[in-house]
Amino acid sequence: MYVLSSPSGAGKTSIATKLIGQDPLISMSISMTTRKPRPGEVDGKDYIFVSKEEFNKAIENNELLEWAEVFGNYYGTPKEAVEQKLKTGKDVLFDIDWQGTQQLHEKVGKDLVRLFILPPSVNVLEERLKRRGQDEDHIVQARMKEAANQISHWAEYDYVIINENLDESLLEVQNILNAERLKRERRVGLSAFVRNMTTRME
Amino acid sequence: MYVLSSPSGAGKTSIATKLIGQDPLISMSISMTTRKPRPGEVDGKDYIFVSKEEFNKAIENNELLEWAEVFGNYYGTPKEAVEQKLKTGKDVLFDIDWQGTQQLHEKVGKDLVRLFILPPSVNVLEERLKRRGQDEDHIVQARMKEAANQISHWAEYDYVIINENLDESLLEVQNILNAERLKRERRVGLSAFVRNMTTRME
Repeated sequence: MYVLSSPSGAGKTSIATKLIGQDPLISMSISMTTRKPRPGEVDGKDYIFVSKEEFNKAIENNELLEWAEVFGNYYGTPKEAVEQKLKTGKDVLFDIDWQGTQQLHEKVGKDLVRLFILPPSVNVLEERLKRRGQDEDHIVQARMKEAANQISHWAEYDYVIINENLDESLLEVQNILNAERLKRERRVGLSAFVRNMTTRME
Repeated sequence: MYVLSSPSGAGKTSIATKLIGQDPLISMSISMTTRKPRPGEVDGKDYIFVSKEEFNKAIENNELLEWAEVFGNYYGTPKEAVEQKLKTGKDVLFDIDWQGTQQLHEKVGKDLVRLFILPPSVNVLEERLKRRGQDEDHIVQARMKEAANQISHWAEYDYVIINENLDESLLEVQNILNAERLKRERRVGLSAFVRNMTTRME
């Protein structure tokens, strides 16, 4: 399980989308949210859009791996979908914030690899947030404060990437995934492979 | 600091040589040995060839980071050369066995990333050892036993690579190095970078 966190505007979603497109071993976890869909967002693909009541029910029934409130909206990860994906041998990528990451880390420990994406500078971040257009000045300012809060949690992550160039950052994320898959503790069946080998050598 | 261990015949030296050739950030640690030079081996490049007395003196003067005995020959890592390389900001690659790796890990802890190279099968390993030619049958058998001993320590390493194809294995090693360099705890100066950024955002 991999989590990709960043302040909004740092390029996380672009990286995640490209990554899913090029790495067949990885599948995206789809979050549940009480936020209204933005133009172009598809229910069940970008998010699972639910009412506040449905979200509360999911919490009560212990159906969420993690959840958090941001700007009055609730976001959470449905447990069952993740377990289904892991069962088929897929890696799962989470696009969640520092609150969700803390909860997930508490639950699954070392099975979670945490990546943090930083913007190259404050100016670039501000530009990206403004370019999204739809928002007024005071909303951009609120988002900058939220971004600073998000960034302040960078030290809780395993890897840090400064997203200056999308293709380079994508390559770095893919590098990390490939390396993590070579870690001894993730090599299922290696112990039997080695035992079989050394038995035949003695 | 990276250590590359494997039984002889698994392809470690080929991987190390190619890696040093393509990654300017990495430098090879040159071991000191009491073993006689093989044809083509260059003193100060492949090994630092010394007498048993000189080796003992280096141990006594605490000039070695690690040392071990294999087949009656001594092998060790001179401390000062490594420290010089690290000072210039280079990563250092060690081509040492499980005994040296244990000693080095004890000394430097998490600063050492340990990679283990496995042969794809017993047959391939035996073929490679025989192809080296110079050795008689009973020496090949002794080397196979030593290889089994070496392989039995695979679980003490951080990453495991099965060397089926040299280019693929090289890519995997390079992948691991790139990923390790993105680890939070290795990102020198990142803390100041983030502090400077968030201060300007609030």
